[in-house]
Amino acid sequence: MRAVCVIGLGLIGGSVLRAAVRSGRTGWGATTSEEDAAAARAAGYDVAPSTEEALRRAAEQEALVVIATPLPAVGGVLRRVARHAPETYLTDVVGVQEPVRELVRELAPTTRYAGGHPMSGTADSGWSAGQAELFDRALWAVTADEGTRLDSWLEAAALAVDCGSRVVPAGPGEHDAAVARISHLPHVLSAVLASVGADGGPLALSLAAGSFRDATRVAGTDPELVRAMTEGNRAALLDALDDALGRLGAARGSLASTGSLNSTVRSGHEANGNLREQHTAERVSRTVPLNAGHALRRLREIGEQGGCVVSLDSESATVELPAPE
Amino acid sequence: MRAVCVIGLGLIGGSVLRAAVRSGRTGWGATTSEEDAAAARAAGYDVAPSTEEALRRAAEQEALVVIATPLPAVGGVLRRVARHAPETYLTDVVGVQEPVRELVRELAPTTRYAGGHPMSGTADSGWSAGQAELFDRALWAVTADEGTRLDSWLEAAALAVDCGSRVVPAGPGEHDAAVARISHLPHVLSAVLASVGADGGPLALSLAAGSFRDATRVAGTDPELVRAMTEGNRAALLDALDDALGRLGAARGSLASTGSLNSTVRSGHEANGNLREQHTAERVSRTVPLNAGHALRRLREIGEQGGCVVSLDSESATVELPAPE
Repeated sequence: MRAVCVIGLGLIGGSVLRAAVRSGRTGWGATTSEEDAAAARAAGYDVAPSTEEALRRAAEQEALVVIATPLPAVGGVLRRVARHAPETYLTDVVGVQEPVRELVRELAPTTRYAGGHPMSGTADSGWSAGQAELFDRALWAVTADEGTRLDSWLEAAALAVDCGSRVVPAGPGEHDAAVARISHLPHVLSAVLASVGADGGPLALSLAAGSFRDATRVAGTDPELVRAMTEGNRAALLDALDDALGRLGAARGSLASTGSLNSTVRSGHEANGNLREQHTAERVSRTVPLNAGHALRRLREIGEQGGCVVSLDSESATVELPAPE
Repeated sequence: MRAVCVIGLGLIGGSVLRAAVRSGRTGWGATTSEEDAAAARAAGYDVAPSTEEALRRAAEQEALVVIATPLPAVGGVLRRVARHAPETYLTDVVGVQEPVRELVRELAPTTRYAGGHPMSGTADSGWSAGQAELFDRALWAVTADEGTRLDSWLEAAALAVDCGSRVVPAGPGEHDAAVARISHLPHVLSAVLASVGADGGPLALSLAAGSFRDATRVAGTDPELVRAMTEGNRAALLDALDDALGRLGAARGSLASTGSLNSTVRSGHEANGNLREQHTAERVSRTVPLNAGHALRRLREIGEQGGCVVSLDSESATVELPAPE
């Protein structure tokens, strides 16, 4: 099993290191946070004295390097990767794909890179919030474009599988458009809703029951993390915001002019039904051979259809797809 | 203990009947749903053969009548109340206050009415979804304006307390403005978010994790109930929608022009902190005498400050308020 070198030991990076070690891999990390470093060492994990030192070891041991910093720090890490481990296998758990891929092309073009995004998280942050189980039975997107090598993709995907996740293959742009809608827009709407609620004063906050608390839970996330995530996916998030503003404006117009919210409410109910159906549908298994030239394209198609990879070996990927009706 | 006659035996009405009987009150109900009537009878509850029959018994036994139908059916029930129990104590659990109060003034002006709104609920509906415990440790708004008699308010509030709830005193307009922000707007945003997510196709729905499912949970509520609730609070909801549209448009503008969501994210985080603080703050107890002429006004002030009534007797109300810092 390939060793793993995790740069950044916050909630996600710290959980990746724990989960990789749990799977039997050799693993070490590095972080600029003295607090996270001390906590990780106290828990018995191997934390290198510097990012440079961690990357030199990665090059020596042919490890997979995992970038687990917020987006604004990725450029600095990649410059060090280019210097100390220029041909390493490389993935990331930053969240957004296209901006990271552009940075990799610019700053570390000879690495063997495929982007990753575990769809797990909590409103907490830091090493102490992490756990080896964070990714168990969760989804983890691993992206590929026309320039991605199959072996790079398989190394990133194998880490996700070893961490307990199922892998959703996707194109970087398709991934970013999807998470703008289902992760970044919810953060913005949650912030807006929390503010509109607080504008109602103590009476409104006192009456706020479960549905309000559910809908505003993610507004409790560290603002710097939310900004790094949402602002880093600007183009795709603007599209999602325009869709939301259009739908919300149409609801306002309809309520004002005719008194009806029929179209808004029915569309939302139907969409919610589609979501629940996709998550509860029967699923079929298939085996996708990896020796065909178009294996990555086939895997991306499976991701676009709502499917995922549940296991991998050197010759094939076992995938699951929602069953046709 | 005053008997209770519940008109409408869906999720809320059915739970009120169960909780009132659990508290030791005599209770019966009526419903136009044969399914709900059969289920309630099968569970051993007393269901009158018609609304008229239930109301005649309420007049004979000086019961408290509870209207628990959706708003569009309230006018028809009130016409029957005016005919069969014109001087009854009357409350409701419809949700919105001003439209119900206007209907009561118009159609049953001699009843002794105070509006009510239990802040409990699930995405399910119908008798079978209800339970006696639905209101335990929850909040229940009971409203009063300048024309509300203290005895009417106390009868409605005592039912809420007997059902296990704490009572939030409020003016009808203040209540409607507050619930537009913390209950009705979340339904609209949840519907919009579910639709924007579904627009992202199977890949987006497949990647949708906990925060998306939390934020769209209420989009699964029966569309007719959501429409009755939101459309019935049109004026207050338009205000809340304009606040949300303004804040969302500002977020969009800031992201497009400067790339920053700082103001949106920080405001939301602070508002979320205020909410959690109010719900976890130390609380102080006070005893409010009920024989003073301004008792209802004093109770409403307490509601505006985020306080609630935790118990009642014939002479005083024990209230709890967030402790001053």
